[in-house]
Formats: sequence, C-alpha cells, structure tokens
Amino acid sequence: MSNQKLFNVAVVGATGAVGEQILKLLEKRDFPINQLKLLSSARSAGTKLTFKGQEVMVEEATPDSFIGVEIALFSAGGDVSKALAPIAAEQGVICIDNTNAFRMDPDTPLVVPEVNIDAINEHKGIIANPNCSTIQMVAALKPLQDRYGISRVIVSTYQAVSGAGARAIDEMLRQSKEVLAGNEVEPQILPVGSLPVKHQIAFNAIPQIDKFQDNGYTLEEMKMVRETKKIMGDESIEVTATCVRIPVVYGHSESVYVELKNDYELEDVKRLLQDAPGITLVDDPANQQYPLATEAAGKPDVFVGRLRRDLGHSRGLNMWIVSDNLMKGAAWNAVQIAEFIAIEK
Amino acid sequence: MSNQKLFNVAVVGATGAVGEQILKLLEKRDFPINQLKLLSSARSAGTKLTFKGQEVMVEEATPDSFIGVEIALFSAGGDVSKALAPIAAEQGVICIDNTNAFRMDPDTPLVVPEVNIDAINEHKGIIANPNCSTIQMVAALKPLQDRYGISRVIVSTYQAVSGAGARAIDEMLRQSKEVLAGNEVEPQILPVGSLPVKHQIAFNAIPQIDKFQDNGYTLEEMKMVRETKKIMGDESIEVTATCVRIPVVYGHSESVYVELKNDYELEDVKRLLQDAPGITLVDDPANQQYPLATEAAGKPDVFVGRLRRDLGHSRGLNMWIVSDNLMKGAAWNAVQIAEFIAIEK
Repeated sequence: MSNQKLFNVAVVGATGAVGEQILKLLEKRDFPINQLKLLSSARSAGTKLTFKGQEVMVEEATPDSFIGVEIALFSAGGDVSKALAPIAAEQGVICIDNTNAFRMDPDTPLVVPEVNIDAINEHKGIIANPNCSTIQMVAALKPLQDRYGISRVIVSTYQAVSGAGARAIDEMLRQSKEVLAGNEVEPQILPVGSLPVKHQIAFNAIPQIDKFQDNGYTLEEMKMVRETKKIMGDESIEVTATCVRIPVVYGHSESVYVELKNDYELEDVKRLLQDAPGITLVDDPANQQYPLATEAAGKPDVFVGRLRRDLGHSRGLNMWIVSDNLMKGAAWNAVQIAEFIAIEK
Repeated sequence: MSNQKLFNVAVVGATGAVGEQILKLLEKRDFPINQLKLLSSARSAGTKLTFKGQEVMVEEATPDSFIGVEIALFSAGGDVSKALAPIAAEQGVICIDNTNAFRMDPDTPLVVPEVNIDAINEHKGIIANPNCSTIQMVAALKPLQDRYGISRVIVSTYQAVSGAGARAIDEMLRQSKEVLAGNEVEPQILPVGSLPVKHQIAFNAIPQIDKFQDNGYTLEEMKMVRETKKIMGDESIEVTATCVRIPVVYGHSESVYVELKNDYELEDVKRLLQDAPGITLVDDPANQQYPLATEAAGKPDVFVGRLRRDLGHSRGLNMWIVSDNLMKGAAWNAVQIAEFIAIEK
C-alpha cells in the first residue's frame, strides 16, 4: 500500500484483548497511518502503548476524540460503541465496530471480507464486524453457498475463554491450577460476568455463552442464526446453534452440519475450500491431520477439516471449522475491512 | 434383593477404571453374590482388592477361570472379550461385555435397560454393553421415540479423557500442569494410543476419538450411528456424529439435534423426560441451570437440558445430554443388566 493516502486512525479499546491484536496487525500489515490515536475508558487512560517503536499515550474516549480521525476501530464494548460511533460517523469518521451494537441494524453493513465485501459500499459511517463464532463459519460456508446453495446449518461450538475477555482467561487458568492441586474452586466470572450464577470452566463444558433469550437460546446462539443470514444475504438459510464454552484459551472450534441445496462431490468441496480465500484446508485423516485450536492460535486463517458426507442424507456434509477468535474472529476481520476502505480511497 | 438366589460373579478387568466402578456398584447395590472372582491380565494378577471389607486376590483371566461362574462382567478390552467370553458362554456363564467385540454381532443383544431391556431374553450367553457416548444419548431419545418417532439425529460430542483410560487422564493432567508452567508438552497417548500421531489435549479440542474408517468417520462416530439403530430397534433412524475429545476428566457432554416424525409441544417433551427412568431433567435457563460434566461425575443418571425448538424446523429439537461415561456409560449400565438377570433367575 505504498504511494497511497495515509489515514488518521483511532483505536477505541486499545488496551483490551482485541485492541491489542488490532494494534499488532496494523503494525505488521504496515497500515497507511498518518496519525494514530489510542482511546480507552477513563480507567485505562494514561497507559502508554508502543506502536512501531514509538510510545503512544492512551486517551479517554469522549465525543470530542474523533476530530480529524478518518477511520476508527471500536472494540470497547457495546455501550461505548452505541454512545460514540454515531457521533464519530456524523463527523465523517468511518467506524469499524467490533461489538454487537449495530450488527443487526438494517443501515449497517455486517461484513466478512471473504463473503460480502461489496456490502461495505452501503455504509452510512458504521461497518459492523460480526461475532467471532459467526465469522469463521460463514467464511467456510461461502464457497459452498456459491457453488451448491445452502438450505440449513446445524452448528455446535467449542469456544475459547478468551472470547469472554482477559478476566475469563485468568479465571480458567487459576481454576485449573486449583483443581490440579486438589482444591475447591469458586467461580466468579463465567459463564456471564453480569449474571448471578457462576460455573466452573476448568475441566468442564458450559453450554451457556451470553444471556438466555425468551426463546431458550442464548444471545450467542441467536447471533449465529441472525448474522449468518445477514452476511450471506439469504434469509432462507435455516441455522440452529448450540454454543458451548470449553477450557481452551485461544481458538474456537465448530462442528458444523450443512445441508446443501444441490448434490455435491466431496472432492469438489475439498477443492473449493482449498482455493477459497482465507481458508486453510487441514483434512488428512490417514495422517490424523485436522484443525486444532492450539494450532490455529495466533494465525489469521480459518482452518477446515473432517469433511465427510452424512451417510443418511446425500446432501448433508459434516465439517470441523477452527479459527483464532481474537484474530479472524475479531481483530483481523476488522483490519481487513480497514484495508479495503484504505484501498478504495 | 433379599431371599433370592446368590450368584457366582466374575469381574474381568477388575483393576481397570471401569472394573473399579463395577466393583463399587456391586458393593453399593448389594448385588446377590455368592462367590466373587476378580480377573485381570497376567500383568495385574496378584493385586489385592477390597470388596465389602474383605481382601480378594486378582487372578489371571484364562479359559479355565470361568468354572462355576454364573455371571461375568468383562471390561478388559476387546481382545480379552473375543478370546474368553465365547468360552465362558459355552460353559453357561452369562457374559456382560463392556467392549466393542460383540456389539454389532446379530446374535448378541445390545442393551440399555431403560431402552430395550426385553432384548436380554434373546441372549446366547453374551450381552453387550453399548459405547458410552451411545448409551447416554439413546436413554434420552427413547421417550421421544416412543411418543413422536425419530427420523434423524445429528450429534456433536464433548468427551472426557477418562473414556480413553487411566493413562489418558494422567496425560491430560500432566500436560495441563506443563502448559500452566509455561512449558512445552510432548503428547504421548491421545488421541489414540496405538496410532503414530499424538496431539495435545490440555486446553484443546481433538476431533478424533478412535481410528478413522474408510468413510472418513472415526470408529467412535460409527459406533454412535450403528449402535443407536440397533438399540432403538429402528434401522430407519438416520444418525450422523462428530466425536470430539475435550479436557474434561469425567462426564461426556453431547449437543444432540433430533428431528421428530410428529409435531411436539416443548412442555410435553420436558414432562416425558422428567418422568423417564434414569433421566434427570436440568433445564432452567432463567436460573442458568443445565447439565454440566463436573456435576454429573460420579452419578448414575443421564442429565438432560437446554431443550429448545429449532426455530427453522418445527419438528427439530436441540438437547444437551450429559452423563458420567464410566457410570451410566459403562459400569452402571453393565450392573443394571446384571441386576435384571439376577431378578429373572
């Protein structure tokens, strides 16, 4: 991206887990930055972070923070985005929002570059980054949708604790040590910090991510249903999800069952995925090779394997999809969107 | 079971993880034992175990071990069962086999007492105990099959390492300590001890349990397909499975999607499961109550929750099924069968 316009960029939530990854990626990708503004809550303001060898002071994010900013990446929670992104957008800032605040807003494009990059052209100042568990799934489903059509998706997730933030990682590691030492644990964060009941995550599987809705599904499960339809641009795709937290630090795994609209050859599916952007096919049962959370951690790709036909339904396909929830599931997808914006300017 | 005939009982594989649970249950249930014989491989012979306060010497299992025995519970691996169970059966011993050796043999009943106890009457000396992941699923599906009929099942499992034996538990705990200490790990057992490639299980999810078959499914996945049809007595039920090992010690969790043949009311499903033998319904989202592996560990029941209708398919139902894989998934199911045999004599 040499010989190109440089941008004034703000990162809102710069001290958080996703913000940290965004900064690393902006640096690594040599994003065309003129001026970089790091913003956070009042609590973290004053922290100094290093970007390309230079110290940058983190400032408190306020409505006045966005003067002169051209691109802002938000990952400081839904409330911060709701309060500040519309104000920034009104000032002409293009906001890329990592939270749930605007994802289902009909005026806000919900974008996974490999799936629906054209949607960014319809933005009105805010572009939403989908939920981590949705991003990796739709990235792998897109080549199948284009070639065969998709009628339904049944997904069960195996989600990492980093999706619940740094305190959830700490809790899981601390609990693991306690259990290994033969001590009792006192869960304090998971499954949902703001809810009263807590469950042990160490050496356990918790079938609750985010709050329950009136229909018995969790918000995380409903995000997968609604966001998939919106990103793939097809309200007729039926999605049902079971979202589960397991004791993994980085990397969501997903057991995805897809029913295609047309007949398929398994070898064609493998070729499609092999050639698809952002996808790495790891599918070699003879050598016990399949995607693993520990191997996806820190990498930008979506890893797909365990491809096999449903023996009872010839249009049914089982897949195992793994990706780093903080990378493609959050920071990398947001930076990809920022790069497309930069290229178009 | 007072005033009743006492039995000469042999436990083959008495020193293993499942054998240990069988002994505990025979003691706790006050099984009508005349003489108890503990058998094992030559390696473990000579070990002394305590049963009802008395020391019992473990002897090497040989073709001559079964003279005078009336009921034998096998859990010493498929090869031992293949070698010895037919010999014992010929001598009139009723063999309850926990291994995969005879499960799909047309002459061998495959029994989960809550589902198909009548099948034990057709035995020819050997009664097979199904695979752990199948047992807990069919126990929960049976009331739905009877009331609505089942057309298909799509299951993703979250399986505990104890299913792979004591050495796999040791490996998982040792690896966890290493990772927490910031050290590299050298996987040696999982996913399959006898195969060359090993993967880290600590803080990971491994989508391989047992060996891969030519069709791309693992043997564990194919067990769930075949055994479900046989136990439920309906070859038309379509089952597709993804079996995954996660870092949990005891208790398999399963995300099960069921498509029923007839319309259902969710409240009726809850009532059916609440009244079903061997099932404990834990389904109270408002209070964040659902089945958890850590809470199922050591208990005989199958725990079911997270019941909710597929929003796209009115006959589709999502369930979360959890049970201790060494209890209902192995030892308890075997002892239940032994109790039915004892009652019938």
